[in-house]
Amino acid sequence: MATQAQEHLLAWLRDAHAMEEQAETMLTSQIGRLKHYPDLRRKLEEHLSETKRQAELVNDCIMRLGGDPSTVKDTMGKMVAFGQGLSGLFVDDEVIKGSLASYTFEQMEIASYTVLVAAAEACGDTTTAAICARILKEEEAMAKWLAAQMPNLVRAFLQLDEIPGVAAKR
Amino acid sequence: MATQAQEHLLAWLRDAHAMEEQAETMLTSQIGRLKHYPDLRRKLEEHLSETKRQAELVNDCIMRLGGDPSTVKDTMGKMVAFGQGLSGLFVDDEVIKGSLASYTFEQMEIASYTVLVAAAEACGDTTTAAICARILKEEEAMAKWLAAQMPNLVRAFLQLDEIPGVAAKR
Repeated sequence: MATQAQEHLLAWLRDAHAMEEQAETMLTSQIGRLKHYPDLRRKLEEHLSETKRQAELVNDCIMRLGGDPSTVKDTMGKMVAFGQGLSGLFVDDEVIKGSLASYTFEQMEIASYTVLVAAAEACGDTTTAAICARILKEEEAMAKWLAAQMPNLVRAFLQLDEIPGVAAKR
Repeated sequence: MATQAQEHLLAWLRDAHAMEEQAETMLTSQIGRLKHYPDLRRKLEEHLSETKRQAELVNDCIMRLGGDPSTVKDTMGKMVAFGQGLSGLFVDDEVIKGSLASYTFEQMEIASYTVLVAAAEACGDTTTAAICARILKEEEAMAKWLAAQMPNLVRAFLQLDEIPGVAAKR
């Protein structure tokens, strides 16, 4: 029988799975819109593949602990509301707000996997701890990349925006 | 007459002002609920004072650039939706999700002030750049504190949760 700690671990893994699916949706729509920022677009495409693998890894952890990823409906609803809240911030400077939203979402993933590593260790589940630590490193690398390119992105956006007829926001 | 870059800078300052006001609301409600986590509560109280000062500093920048903070209604609505999305993630592990939400919000602030520093520099507005750089440092320190205490918080929560009659989530 599962302890309360194991039940929390399983619940947090389900949250993480919903989060990765929401990340997939957000990344796909952002990639589809970008035109003038090839480096950012390429990086987001790379991270989309990474995100799909991460969702599978989290799913494996859920199955191994006897859970069922199909029961994520409730969490998923909340995560979609959160994602929509983030996306609702996009206006006429879409590439900037989109990049800000991606960075913010990455950081939420970083905090979530930090929680998962600690919870898995507290449960003595070294396999889940190792998988979550690996995903954590990938999310940290992505957040670091997004933060580092932010000042250049702002300069590129403001310059493009001065050229008549160019939709700098995408 | 303001250039397009200056108009973007002003719009982003208004977003930041709405963001600080939303942070104030989120921090106040989180502080009011916490019972078993005195260190976290104390730090959130400290950051609430810091947040109020930051909102004033941003307001000063808006006024100096000839803007009017009362025109933030639209941004504010979006920011509230975002904050509600984050708050909607709270369930029976409220202190964990609350801490995760605070960390995520801090990171959004970090990205926003990074954008503002770059934009102010691009406009040659060294006063705004310096103020935003100072706020950025404060947000980074808060995010770092929240990240560092996360594993301990998870362990404390899981331990408290084993004690019958203790509402570990607060």
